[in-house]
Amino acid sequence: MKQNNPLKLVKLEHRVALVTHVHPDGDAYGSILGLKHILSEKALLVDAFADSDTQSKYSFLPSFSELKGEDSIGDIEYDLCFVLDCGNKERVYGFSSLLTSSKMVVNIDHHVSNIGFGQIDWVDSSASSTSEILTDLASDVDDTVNAKAATCLLTGIIMDTGSFLYDSTTKNTHIATAFLLDQGADHAAIRYHLFQNRPLQNVKFLGYLIDKMELISNNQVVLLTVSDELLNSFNVAYEDLDEFISYVRDISGVELAIIFKELSPEETKISLRSKKWCDVNELASNFNGGGHERAAGAVIQGTLDEAREKLIPLVTSIFNGGQSV
Amino acid sequence: MKQNNPLKLVKLEHRVALVTHVHPDGDAYGSILGLKHILSEKALLVDAFADSDTQSKYSFLPSFSELKGEDSIGDIEYDLCFVLDCGNKERVYGFSSLLTSSKMVVNIDHHVSNIGFGQIDWVDSSASSTSEILTDLASDVDDTVNAKAATCLLTGIIMDTGSFLYDSTTKNTHIATAFLLDQGADHAAIRYHLFQNRPLQNVKFLGYLIDKMELISNNQVVLLTVSDELLNSFNVAYEDLDEFISYVRDISGVELAIIFKELSPEETKISLRSKKWCDVNELASNFNGGGHERAAGAVIQGTLDEAREKLIPLVTSIFNGGQSV
Repeated sequence: MKQNNPLKLVKLEHRVALVTHVHPDGDAYGSILGLKHILSEKALLVDAFADSDTQSKYSFLPSFSELKGEDSIGDIEYDLCFVLDCGNKERVYGFSSLLTSSKMVVNIDHHVSNIGFGQIDWVDSSASSTSEILTDLASDVDDTVNAKAATCLLTGIIMDTGSFLYDSTTKNTHIATAFLLDQGADHAAIRYHLFQNRPLQNVKFLGYLIDKMELISNNQVVLLTVSDELLNSFNVAYEDLDEFISYVRDISGVELAIIFKELSPEETKISLRSKKWCDVNELASNFNGGGHERAAGAVIQGTLDEAREKLIPLVTSIFNGGQSV
Repeated sequence: MKQNNPLKLVKLEHRVALVTHVHPDGDAYGSILGLKHILSEKALLVDAFADSDTQSKYSFLPSFSELKGEDSIGDIEYDLCFVLDCGNKERVYGFSSLLTSSKMVVNIDHHVSNIGFGQIDWVDSSASSTSEILTDLASDVDDTVNAKAATCLLTGIIMDTGSFLYDSTTKNTHIATAFLLDQGADHAAIRYHLFQNRPLQNVKFLGYLIDKMELISNNQVVLLTVSDELLNSFNVAYEDLDEFISYVRDISGVELAIIFKELSPEETKISLRSKKWCDVNELASNFNGGGHERAAGAVIQGTLDEAREKLIPLVTSIFNGGQSV
């Protein structure tokens, strides 16, 4: 990549919008809030847009309460709209008007499926996370990464690497992390809120899932099926489901873990995690989804049962037939 | 610390013994095997002594099969005996004769409870792990950290920091890790063998433990009690118990997690993990044990029930009485 650092496009008189994907995860919140703090004294106005919930485990992030929802989209014509951590522009859902009304869209992402949709596209699929990309870009601009920004960006890196375990973790990820710790990132807060504050009901829910999980294709594939009623009965948050899928993916001999989650009576979310060889980005693309080779997702039109009937034959043909997708 | 680098004591004509603690964990195996590879071309003979089992999840470590057991202690008078990751010299158990028969004992450790027992003591309780200390020492000596050494040392760092989550993780831990990745540490093998290869019986065992765990002192303390019969019935390895205690310690509101493990009809091992304030090193010292402020252990003379009767009143007096230990 020989482009200019896109953070250097921001000028003091600019009004800047920051947008990320629907159902934000740690890297989504970490990158938009990190960039908000990075740009706070570099622009006239920096508005970060994302769905948020005061009950979110991410609510400890500095300025989380300043996130703006869809109903806060006003008439401001932003000079720049940074779209962060979005594999495609449809993933911004209700915030899409910000992309069309802004003078320039800058797309910064690490998803391999991102084919570019901005006037500026800065896509680096070798980075562990969008937060890692922003750390590198910001460390190249003087005095922009304060402790608040560092806490947000470190959150993104930690959550998108499973705390430095996923194969996306590189030497550069650790160097970026050392830099963020040096800038005052609050690692103790991240650890406490995101890893040591597991609701008792989630622990009980894991016990339930272990009891009910299905192993198919000679125990190489594990399936979890979660209805809305079930999630509500345990009072488990939708955003917490990722931790359960990773837990069962890591069973010895398992290559692929799938969770089917009821979004509505007509829509089912599938999340896919693989271990060594199964390309789940390609598998998800059958349903207009995407992500990474080892972690991807999609929304299937249909009930839980209908989604299972669509996906499971594809999976068994890969595992039982020995074909690649 | 203004001592000389103790690795520079090693000369080409030296015969060197490496020893670590009983029931070796990732940092114990990582540090002795890492140092074995570091010294392999720097000394005449390097013998690494530790209990080992071909079924161990650590058996993927380079030269694991060359570890020597107690019955391999011969008549060699070693010039140097490096004792690694041992808070006190009693923890070497059956290998103690190596300390008395060697010309010089070098104690390298990161446990705060280590008061020194070598002719040379290199104790740094600010380090995440003995493997981190060895990485720093070895990177100061030319061309000593090959890929095999790097894989061993990275294993020690990762296992002693819960993959960079524990509060012992510092900027230096990440810099050391970036160095080890640069030297060719096999992160994929570490991830696969230690995090993605969880035996199905362990997952089932966690489900059982979640069902049976006891929450006391207003849900601030969680207790797990594991008899030998129970462990055998699930076919779970003793060395895997740490992952379960960490899992339940991380429940929201829990400060202290304790596991009682039957060692024999006369002896019970206790492992203690705390979250924010409870000094478990001090708690373990009541039973001649030790470790760190947030992770410690001890052996209590008595059955499981007797050990519970000795420890639980101490715990409830801390949590219910609000006194420190």
